[in-house]
Amino acid sequence: MEGTRLCHRNLLPTTNPSLTCRFFSNSVIHHTSFHNYKTNFPKFLVSATMEASFKPEEARVPAALPLPTPPVTKFKIALCQLSVTTDKERNIAHAQQAIEDAADKGAQLILLPEIWNSPYSNDSFPVYAEDIDAGGDASPSTRMLSEVSRSRKITIIGGSIPERSGDKLYNSCCVFGTDGKLLAKHRKIHLFDIDIPGKMTFKESRTLTAGERPTIVDTEVGRIGIGICYDIRFQELAAIYAARGAHLLCYPGAFNMTTGPLHWELLQRARAADCQLYVATCSPARDGGSSYVAWGHSTLVGPFGEVLVTTEHEETTLIAEIDYSVIEERRTYLPFQKQRRGDLYQLVDVDRLNSTGAK
Amino acid sequence: MEGTRLCHRNLLPTTNPSLTCRFFSNSVIHHTSFHNYKTNFPKFLVSATMEASFKPEEARVPAALPLPTPPVTKFKIALCQLSVTTDKERNIAHAQQAIEDAADKGAQLILLPEIWNSPYSNDSFPVYAEDIDAGGDASPSTRMLSEVSRSRKITIIGGSIPERSGDKLYNSCCVFGTDGKLLAKHRKIHLFDIDIPGKMTFKESRTLTAGERPTIVDTEVGRIGIGICYDIRFQELAAIYAARGAHLLCYPGAFNMTTGPLHWELLQRARAADCQLYVATCSPARDGGSSYVAWGHSTLVGPFGEVLVTTEHEETTLIAEIDYSVIEERRTYLPFQKQRRGDLYQLVDVDRLNSTGAK
Repeated sequence: MEGTRLCHRNLLPTTNPSLTCRFFSNSVIHHTSFHNYKTNFPKFLVSATMEASFKPEEARVPAALPLPTPPVTKFKIALCQLSVTTDKERNIAHAQQAIEDAADKGAQLILLPEIWNSPYSNDSFPVYAEDIDAGGDASPSTRMLSEVSRSRKITIIGGSIPERSGDKLYNSCCVFGTDGKLLAKHRKIHLFDIDIPGKMTFKESRTLTAGERPTIVDTEVGRIGIGICYDIRFQELAAIYAARGAHLLCYPGAFNMTTGPLHWELLQRARAADCQLYVATCSPARDGGSSYVAWGHSTLVGPFGEVLVTTEHEETTLIAEIDYSVIEERRTYLPFQKQRRGDLYQLVDVDRLNSTGAK
Repeated sequence: MEGTRLCHRNLLPTTNPSLTCRFFSNSVIHHTSFHNYKTNFPKFLVSATMEASFKPEEARVPAALPLPTPPVTKFKIALCQLSVTTDKERNIAHAQQAIEDAADKGAQLILLPEIWNSPYSNDSFPVYAEDIDAGGDASPSTRMLSEVSRSRKITIIGGSIPERSGDKLYNSCCVFGTDGKLLAKHRKIHLFDIDIPGKMTFKESRTLTAGERPTIVDTEVGRIGIGICYDIRFQELAAIYAARGAHLLCYPGAFNMTTGPLHWELLQRARAADCQLYVATCSPARDGGSSYVAWGHSTLVGPFGEVLVTTEHEETTLIAEIDYSVIEERRTYLPFQKQRRGDLYQLVDVDRLNSTGAK
């Protein structure tokens, strides 16, 4: 009763001038080597009763990539929920110690919090910002991350720091490979501009500039999609990463005392369950004396949307095992990744559509 | 620091032959009178620092409609978590009694469970199916719904029943207005075909045919998007309804003892929080002796993703108040509906794109 077919068609046009050639004019480091991995082409089984006119492969444009075979199936991830002070040197040394401690305990992937080298405030961002592209003394925070990733042979998703680039500031996450090289840099795409009267008002856009593109990176511990905090609210970004073959989404994030209890865990679980992949988040520890009080609750969620490990708001490092074989198992049990109705809705990944020519 | 602009542009081309003229050849009742309502054009405030190149209005194709002003702002909804037996006549009389009791308590909108006139099994669907379009004696279940909606002047989202149409069977939800007229009929778009070894195997597609389009309907109690059970797993459907101006999504659904505890509440809360609207679900009561054991837990969720009322698995009717003014408040506080990156991702509503000509 079941037939087999490979789905790779994409019928959306590539001639739309609004969708072409917009993303190749800047120098953002952006690593999307989708084709470096061995690809594990799954059998695309479609029930004989699922009409071809449903076009599940067209629900993502370009069509979703098969889940790649990662270099490692099981490994330990560490979520370093760091305390952050006004002393940048201390913050860097403190983060390094936490990373080394986690590596000593067997972690192969380290995730740091959003804005871990600086207080989280518009006043602080310009003061603590570093020129990541210049490197060296111009960016002591990322220099440390590079050195420790190389010396310990670990992958680091470096939370985020304020980045200065020309006359602009960004909220940027650097990913370092086991050789200490910068694999990718994600600049927060969706800036946090909210206003809940009497509870929470913050406008990052007063000082920061938004990033220009999604960031997904092949590492020694799998294909990882990066978002920073408010980016997690946009389900489209997670869905795009899933369609690009992500095993894991990492969101450094500092939700606050209003949105944290409301939405932090919900959003992580929703992204994981809808995309059927792992989601890891890392918050700073709570400092009740700061102007922006972080919710904490760094968490690892599995591909059924299940919380695998979480914590409260104090400083701590969580270490947990990720097993990527679970992803394919979950997708076999609940095959809705292959049951979408491309005849009714299509999510267009504009950046990938342009990059690949959609062929 | 803030400028005002109205966003109504749509730059995706309308000439793609794969996207045109596919949906007008069948007789599915489908009510999408988006323009019958007074529209409450909100001021579209975009931070001066949000670059125009982000194109938030293009994140939905066609562009999202403004939230319409509903005929009523506050009203009571009833979720009738009915027990279902093998006796269809009893099921119909039983549902009528529950509806009338809820109307007596002031409910203006009634939501029934998925498959409330029949056991939930592939063996039962052909036996209990009714010819809804023929009506009268050919569909005693919907005749009852029509009569009671008219006599009590209430809106009914009639859960679902097996529908026979020609030689096909559907899982169909009928919506009746306060005058007893059938306003819309939604045929389950995504059929429930899953296989979790040793826990849950079910393939609706063995007997049922999938519906051909989304269903959103203007009623006396607001604009309501309809999904049936497994439809809730597809975030795109909810996002399409939100972009069409839905106030409320109603999902009659019978999750089971495996997927229920895993995902039932999570998915409802995720759809509500991501779309910032109300979500109501209604399950049959649990019958431990049936071949398919329903999870129960009918629920109303508010536009912050917060559970407003829920229950366990026994037969009961939940009555709760909906206040649509909360939707705009939530969207003002957390304006991510206007912060999407249309330059990076676009969700295409194929049916609406074809229907409107995308102009």
